[in-house]
Amino acid sequence: MKYLHTMVRVSNLDESLVFYCQQLGLKEIRRKEFEQGRFTLVFLAAEGDEGAQVELTYNWDAQAYDEGRNFGHLAYSVKDIYATCQQLKDSGVVINRPPRDGYMAFVRSPDNVSIEILQEGAPLAPKEPWASMENTGNW
Amino acid sequence: MKYLHTMVRVSNLDESLVFYCQQLGLKEIRRKEFEQGRFTLVFLAAEGDEGAQVELTYNWDAQAYDEGRNFGHLAYSVKDIYATCQQLKDSGVVINRPPRDGYMAFVRSPDNVSIEILQEGAPLAPKEPWASMENTGNW
Repeated sequence: MKYLHTMVRVSNLDESLVFYCQQLGLKEIRRKEFEQGRFTLVFLAAEGDEGAQVELTYNWDAQAYDEGRNFGHLAYSVKDIYATCQQLKDSGVVINRPPRDGYMAFVRSPDNVSIEILQEGAPLAPKEPWASMENTGNW
Repeated sequence: MKYLHTMVRVSNLDESLVFYCQQLGLKEIRRKEFEQGRFTLVFLAAEGDEGAQVELTYNWDAQAYDEGRNFGHLAYSVKDIYATCQQLKDSGVVINRPPRDGYMAFVRSPDNVSIEILQEGAPLAPKEPWASMENTGNW
């Protein structure tokens, strides 16, 4: 038995690819369009970690997707949480839970999927502007 | 950057462990109880695939968790989809989408998290009772 992917539905594929690829840093592994079913599947993964994927399901006749509480988040570790959050912030992503502790941050996708970002290894030393940055919204 | 886990909330930890471990076949990797926050985290993974985990979050003052449409499912590949589905069925799990095609099946967790089960490699030849088994509910 082997983990393959977590599937999330996206209401706008272009916006979602900006978020997941350009901003968060995942890369597109493969894509399949289903003309008859009128949907597109796009599989994403972190560079060098292609075995664990996120599957974006884009229905061409899209609707806004509500969020439930049974699903929590997707989590990724990064080498430098401050660098990752700075890059996300510079590209316009709201850092809902800034890495005040040098260890954990949360952002959300365009469809409100929570993404947890965790520092690889030990927490980094507290550092401004993160150390005193307040939470924004929920995640 | 590396995928760590997908987090789902569970309203009853015992029932959820029966489902995810005894029935679905994941194993518990580690567990942490937070007395002050009144919650327990349990990390699960497929045997031999410990790098890709599911994190169960159990709040001690639990509520029923609704489901949204932005989250779709978790997917696992298995060596013999008929054997896996038979074992799930024998243990009382509803096979919402039977593997009629020898390739894909869906079940749901006690908190309605959809789990996709995919045959590793090529689809198996169609086989009864699966080939003529109808769908039950949605997933």
